Amino acid sequence: MSEPTHPQTFPPPSLGKVVEALCSASENLSSSPQPPHVRREFPSRAVIYELVEDLRSVHFPGFFGPSELTGETLRFHVGATLDKVLHGLREQIKRGLCVPCSEAEWLLCDKCDAKAFDIARAFVGRLPEVRRILATDVQAAYEGDPALTNPDEAIFCYPGLMAITSQRIAHELVKLGVPLIPRIITEHAHSLTGIDIHPGARIGEKFFIDHGTGVVIGETCIIGNNVRIYQGVTLGAKSFPLDEHGKPIKGIDRHPIVEDDVTIYSNATILGRVTIGKGSMIGGNVWLTRSLPPGSTVTQGQEKG
Amino acid sequence: MSEPTHPQTFPPPSLGKVVEALCSASENLSSSPQPPHVRREFPSRAVIYELVEDLRSVHFPGFFGPSELTGETLRFHVGATLDKVLHGLREQIKRGLCVPCSEAEWLLCDKCDAKAFDIARAFVGRLPEVRRILATDVQAAYEGDPALTNPDEAIFCYPGLMAITSQRIAHELVKLGVPLIPRIITEHAHSLTGIDIHPGARIGEKFFIDHGTGVVIGETCIIGNNVRIYQGVTLGAKSFPLDEHGKPIKGIDRHPIVEDDVTIYSNATILGRVTIGKGSMIGGNVWLTRSLPPGSTVTQGQEKG
Amino acid sequence: MSEPTHPQTFPPPSLGKVVEALCSASENLSSSPQPPHVRREFPSRAVIYELVEDLRSVHFPGFFGPSELTGETLRFHVGATLDKVLHGLREQIKRGLCVPCSEAEWLLCDKCDAKAFDIARAFVGRLPEVRRILATDVQAAYEGDPALTNPDEAIFCYPGLMAITSQRIAHELVKLGVPLIPRIITEHAHSLTGIDIHPGARIGEKFFIDHGTGVVIGETCIIGNNVRIYQGVTLGAKSFPLDEHGKPIKGIDRHPIVEDDVTIYSNATILGRVTIGKGSMIGGNVWLTRSLPPGSTVTQGQEKG
Amino acid sequence: MSEPTHPQTFPPPSLGKVVEALCSASENLSSSPQPPHVRREFPSRAVIYELVEDLRSVHFPGFFGPSELTGETLRFHVGATLDKVLHGLREQIKRGLCVPCSEAEWLLCDKCDAKAFDIARAFVGRLPEVRRILATDVQAAYEGDPALTNPDEAIFCYPGLMAITSQRIAHELVKLGVPLIPRIITEHAHSLTGIDIHPGARIGEKFFIDHGTGVVIGETCIIGNNVRIYQGVTLGAKSFPLDEHGKPIKGIDRHPIVEDDVTIYSNATILGRVTIGKGSMIGGNVWLTRSLPPGSTVTQGQEKG
Amino acid sequence: MSEPTHPQTFPPPSLGKVVEALCSASENLSSSPQPPHVRREFPSRAVIYELVEDLRSVHFPGFFGPSELTGETLRFHVGATLDKVLHGLREQIKRGLCVPCSEAEWLLCDKCDAKAFDIARAFVGRLPEVRRILATDVQAAYEGDPALTNPDEAIFCYPGLMAITSQRIAHELVKLGVPLIPRIITEHAHSLTGIDIHPGARIGEKFFIDHGTGVVIGETCIIGNNVRIYQGVTLGAKSFPLDEHGKPIKGIDRHPIVEDDVTIYSNATILGRVTIGKGSMIGGNVWLTRSLPPGSTVTQGQEKG
Amino acid sequence: MSEPTHPQTFPPPSLGKVVEALCSASENLSSSPQPPHVRREFPSRAVIYELVEDLRSVHFPGFFGPSELTGETLRFHVGATLDKVLHGLREQIKRGLCVPCSEAEWLLCDKCDAKAFDIARAFVGRLPEVRRILATDVQAAYEGDPALTNPDEAIFCYPGLMAITSQRIAHELVKLGVPLIPRIITEHAHSLTGIDIHPGARIGEKFFIDHGTGVVIGETCIIGNNVRIYQGVTLGAKSFPLDEHGKPIKGIDRHPIVEDDVTIYSNATILGRVTIGKGSMIGGNVWLTRSLPPGSTVTQGQEKG
Repeated sequence: MSEPTHPQTFPPPSLGKVVEALCSASENLSSSPQPPHVRREFPSRAVIYELVEDLRSVHFPGFFGPSELTGETLRFHVGATLDKVLHGLREQIKRGLCVPCSEAEWLLCDKCDAKAFDIARAFVGRLPEVRRILATDVQAAYEGDPALTNPDEAIFCYPGLMAITSQRIAHELVKLGVPLIPRIITEHAHSLTGIDIHPGARIGEKFFIDHGTGVVIGETCIIGNNVRIYQGVTLGAKSFPLDEHGKPIKGIDRHPIVEDDVTIYSNATILGRVTIGKGSMIGGNVWLTRSLPPGSTVTQGQEKG
Repeated sequence: MSEPTHPQTFPPPSLGKVVEALCSASENLSSSPQPPHVRREFPSRAVIYELVEDLRSVHFPGFFGPSELTGETLRFHVGATLDKVLHGLREQIKRGLCVPCSEAEWLLCDKCDAKAFDIARAFVGRLPEVRRILATDVQAAYEGDPALTNPDEAIFCYPGLMAITSQRIAHELVKLGVPLIPRIITEHAHSLTGIDIHPGARIGEKFFIDHGTGVVIGETCIIGNNVRIYQGVTLGAKSFPLDEHGKPIKGIDRHPIVEDDVTIYSNATILGRVTIGKGSMIGGNVWLTRSLPPGSTVTQGQEKG
Repeated sequence: MSEPTHPQTFPPPSLGKVVEALCSASENLSSSPQPPHVRREFPSRAVIYELVEDLRSVHFPGFFGPSELTGETLRFHVGATLDKVLHGLREQIKRGLCVPCSEAEWLLCDKCDAKAFDIARAFVGRLPEVRRILATDVQAAYEGDPALTNPDEAIFCYPGLMAITSQRIAHELVKLGVPLIPRIITEHAHSLTGIDIHPGARIGEKFFIDHGTGVVIGETCIIGNNVRIYQGVTLGAKSFPLDEHGKPIKGIDRHPIVEDDVTIYSNATILGRVTIGKGSMIGGNVWLTRSLPPGSTVTQGQEKG
Repeated sequence: MSEPTHPQTFPPPSLGKVVEALCSASENLSSSPQPPHVRREFPSRAVIYELVEDLRSVHFPGFFGPSELTGETLRFHVGATLDKVLHGLREQIKRGLCVPCSEAEWLLCDKCDAKAFDIARAFVGRLPEVRRILATDVQAAYEGDPALTNPDEAIFCYPGLMAITSQRIAHELVKLGVPLIPRIITEHAHSLTGIDIHPGARIGEKFFIDHGTGVVIGETCIIGNNVRIYQGVTLGAKSFPLDEHGKPIKGIDRHPIVEDDVTIYSNATILGRVTIGKGSMIGGNVWLTRSLPPGSTVTQGQEKG
Repeated sequence: MSEPTHPQTFPPPSLGKVVEALCSASENLSSSPQPPHVRREFPSRAVIYELVEDLRSVHFPGFFGPSELTGETLRFHVGATLDKVLHGLREQIKRGLCVPCSEAEWLLCDKCDAKAFDIARAFVGRLPEVRRILATDVQAAYEGDPALTNPDEAIFCYPGLMAITSQRIAHELVKLGVPLIPRIITEHAHSLTGIDIHPGARIGEKFFIDHGTGVVIGETCIIGNNVRIYQGVTLGAKSFPLDEHGKPIKGIDRHPIVEDDVTIYSNATILGRVTIGKGSMIGGNVWLTRSLPPGSTVTQGQEKG
Repeated sequence: MSEPTHPQTFPPPSLGKVVEALCSASENLSSSPQPPHVRREFPSRAVIYELVEDLRSVHFPGFFGPSELTGETLRFHVGATLDKVLHGLREQIKRGLCVPCSEAEWLLCDKCDAKAFDIARAFVGRLPEVRRILATDVQAAYEGDPALTNPDEAIFCYPGLMAITSQRIAHELVKLGVPLIPRIITEHAHSLTGIDIHPGARIGEKFFIDHGTGVVIGETCIIGNNVRIYQGVTLGAKSFPLDEHGKPIKGIDRHPIVEDDVTIYSNATILGRVTIGKGSMIGGNVWLTRSLPPGSTVTQGQEKG
């Protein structure tokens, strides 16, 4: 584990040799090897990030995207943006679907393209429902934070609202069977907010995260309505069943169920497929690996049922 | 709470219907409804972010903004940047003031514009004092971190310094009565650093935050001089008094007072309007909801007065 | 500590006076004062960030950088990017070396430029080895996270992989004696991921950080192979020996040694130059300031050797 | 008139002195001197250029601006662009109106702003008529050029169509009394196409310019329907009546009237307030300073009435 | 033909009505009407302009595109750029082919895509020959202009070389049957240089245009080797045979043939399918509509055979 | 001279072979061959264009560059821009000087860098004089064009003023011995305006070009004060003396001398080292190859002395 300092290996290898070494290493990188002449198009993270910003602006026009709108021109801007989203998503979803696609010349893979278009259209069709739920999240933020003087401030500034918006969008894509892209979306929100919600998590209405840095919500979590969570809270897995090769088995329900009207204070950790009953309150820094009946209150050092 | 998988609702609604649904939902979104033909201009987060970067560059020229300067040309660059800030802020402050403004045609709202200009000029007049205090923060970072080999590195890289710079700027705007924009500024710093300091907090000289991810400092905190805080520290509220409708009452002093020369180690949580006396040391992971006299030392499992 | 509200000091000082005050304050800012006519060129953070993205794209072509590649054209893209990196780094390294350089007209400082070129070439020569180790990190992520359905997703989305990639790049620059720039690189990763790994830390193969927000790994840490770390883990210093002026002595070994095959769960804190023996498991929220023999298991409230 | 070579005046004056000299020279530059603290906002050429591109895209959607549209989404894109144009023009027109405005604090000049908004709205109301006439210009190009295989090519590529589009837009602004901006628009088209049509010229339907480089059409020209003009044609002024100070008198009718169905071949020059009668044909390189009756044919060296 | 001034039609029509009028007008704009739900993708001029710049940089690396290259890294840059060109062209060619394509859902039009890919590959295969000829053009410029001190200057600055480069590229696309795009390319060069060469013109080696503004070279011109042309020269059509509807018949040979070693001085005009014999010299401002035998000299007012 | 249509050479050569062919062709392209590992840095046209725009903005602040300025902040903006110009030019001039430089490792070529810095400083020192002359050009435009309603319009829109500004800047660089860059500057103006003035031409005060497309002014022209020129005017060379190899001899005086107070109307052509005497008037389309005494008037078909 020792390491010499300044071991400058002069003369360094030529650029050509470094290039060769790096390229050889990359050729077997992906899970889906490709023939040498096939041009592979991965989803583009930059494009996806922009599409998510566009989606934010159709949900909260004026707050995100162009900042000047009238009632008269709102429809033009929302419509133009949504058209862009529809076709941008189609392309990215197709790329995501094609990554493991075995077609010889996948650029021409019609099957993936047609499927991608169907998914993109279905996704757009669900946005009004996403919008309806987000309005409840805004309301929850305004009610939950005494520092907030009006709801505009929550939409403009709240990392919790930004994270849940991205997650609700990503979750719709998960439900439509889109690979890769949902996780790219939630990890981007994670980067911006420090809040890490897996796109697979199912989250009810009026969800509120305050401050939020360090929050982790796992893939198989189920969260009811009117739940409040503070910074540093983990809703994680306790342990992973291993398969016969000693590797974690993928896809098992392993994260908490949090029922309606629960509040979880900062840095609490809840692990495993436990159920936190309706109306419970979990205090800060609590470490919890068992289920609680409805109406429970748990604080550091004590638990009340 | 159950949720079907892949419920692809074909055929999806037309784009036109989705646009209509989203726009209807947005029309009553804001706290200040507008007549349909009035063009509303919200503050622009992108512009505000750029103004903050400009302000960073006039405080630390060379480290931020254009990286090549001589003593001779410093004034030109600082002056040109400050001129841009003055007029950019004027516009954004006006937009912030006008959000709840009841003027029929607010684009022509002279009252808000004149007030915004006064505020922007007053703000610029306070920058030398902000600069003076930031120099003490740089000094604190250099003295407090053994990994730092010179003060330049703190200015270049320290998330703590970035966060406190943004907060000190935002706090001046709070003092001048500017709505919305201060919180946009500190939440941007929160996004970049994981450090969440409310713009309302009053913070003394020589303030040092190390690492910083997860730090939360609430709106009514008062922090003295020469205070050091490590990652994950929360200076939060314990509970919120509710009004007759069961909603939290806004604007009450509810966060800690931290006196001079206090050090608070990582992941400690201090809640409520308590006072941590001058020269105290709070250990890592401590959970504290009561006041401490000067010179106290508290570590996990024990407290010394 | 009291502070009046709205103390608008009208008329505000003129822009010219504010500029003068800010510039005077900046003239003695840096650790290396310069004659008034010397043009100082600091490293540019924007350029360094871009170089790091370029380096990411040569390690994981297609996943980062241009998203469309064939086996045939991979070499062209990797080569062109590496050429850009080589010369971009040369310039930034030179700027970093020259910050404390005493040459009168340092823009012409040949010594620094020649040294910078040597370092940049040596750095590029080490990239294949960096690439080899990163492949083990990808493998560790795939094996360690049940939510991952294929390794592509780890490369695309995992903040832990992003942070360790930046750190491994920065660490090579540390070994080559480059000042300032390594810390700029790791703090950028810190901003993006909430994971704060000092560029000086020595980290073995197959390193895996899950979720990651709030992780802190100190400058003198030594970490073995096949180590797993969860969100909020701190590998920090316990206290700093002070010199005769009461300032921390810089450069002393003060962070943990973590041997091979150790797992450390979320929010655990390990402080000081202690050794965590091979194969140990540290539970969530554990606070640890002493060494552990190989094979230890420690959870909150108990320790087993 | 002689000039020494390489007269390097060492040492050069300091940057500060050069700045002073340039600024002093600029203080009396404009026709409308301003008090030292008044912030003057000129129209921005970059913004105007972008607005013209936006206008091109609402007239020929798909050919200019976003290149992917359906019948369903056309309205969204055209509407969003037009909204942007309306408010962008309002701001630029206000700046243009205010240049000679004597208000002390013109940034707050309500009179100019209200007038600018009226003009911008009136301008937008005229666009359908502009669009109708441009369709006749496209038809003329398709009929007039044997190299054209379909009308799309004319819209995509024809400098003549680009120039006449800009002029027709600028001419509407002239009719609405907007200063400065119309000329900025036509000079931009001049730069792109080599075709210099004054915004004041009145031009009928089905106007066709082929190749176009070097075409000059003066301010007071009146051109009928179905006129064709080739490269290098000048429709200029012959001489300018001078006032008592020997300066040209501004605003007098001094350029040709060209009636319907006239063709003017390359490099012909027609000067003065002459009338070219309906259906005439002017040959290449002809130099003409007198009126022609309808049906005339003029070629180099001969004229036929 | 009279036109009222300032006829401000208040109140202006609503934005919605203007949008409706413009959109209705556009629905029948294109030569190839589309069903309302089909998304049409026109070639993008911005993308094509960028591809041409990329092509310029692979022909003259260092002079265009990235300005820093070594012999070692040249291949990387040229290869990466060419890969980008190949796939960018494929997409644009497909769009061009599909404009008149009658497929119901042309986004999925495989036939056009496959054809576009074949064409793009064939085009790239011809670039070395284009490069060979361009080297003769550079040589001609250096030999022909006494103001040139080295060939670098011609490559860097000469509008004539820029125009002929674009035309030679566009001409290869014409030969491969690509619609629309060749003309977009040459009209872009026309805009930049004032030199208008139709992409259909066939031009021999060592072609030199000096100054160039106003040069027009028609679609069916054939130009031999070692020809020199000065500013304002037109090689045009004399008249167009009309069809039974009085419209010009498209596609007939109607422009001059210029044999090897001919020089044509500024502003000369040569019209019709005439042949200028090998080694002839045409003086400035000459107007010529008949063939000349080899070795002719023609100046204004006289002709020598 | 015949050319087959659609000769699609399938299968096309591989991308690798095309790259090889293009790179081989480029290796001997430049006049100054370089060893394979030397990294050559050509001047960057994009950077030079931007520097010229910056120079335009320091000469006409508000009209070019940032459009909002007060008397108070003018100095900041001019100073910051000039500082940027000084160092940007230094780098570009160095690259220009080094193109033919024989140093083995020219990136480190101190001699060129020091010379470049001296030249850049001397150039900046001359700007006030350039500014003084440009003010006379603005005055000439305002007096000369009846369509101009105020001098602002000339500065904002006049291609003639844009071209002469670029030429006066470029001419100063010619006088200081800078290679390549002056021609890049004037050819850029040529592209934007259609006006081609060689940077070597010496031009007096109060110079006015109207419309301008097609104007050509040769390298060794000498033009007095108060001269007016219209579109399409050529001041060119008549013939080039050939050397013993039949190549034009470079650097001989071969263009016209135009004395004070001369007016030259559109499309006139004056060739050779002739002198047009003070106060002469040259009519449109005149072709002239001999000297004229002062006070001459020449029109097509006649000359008056």
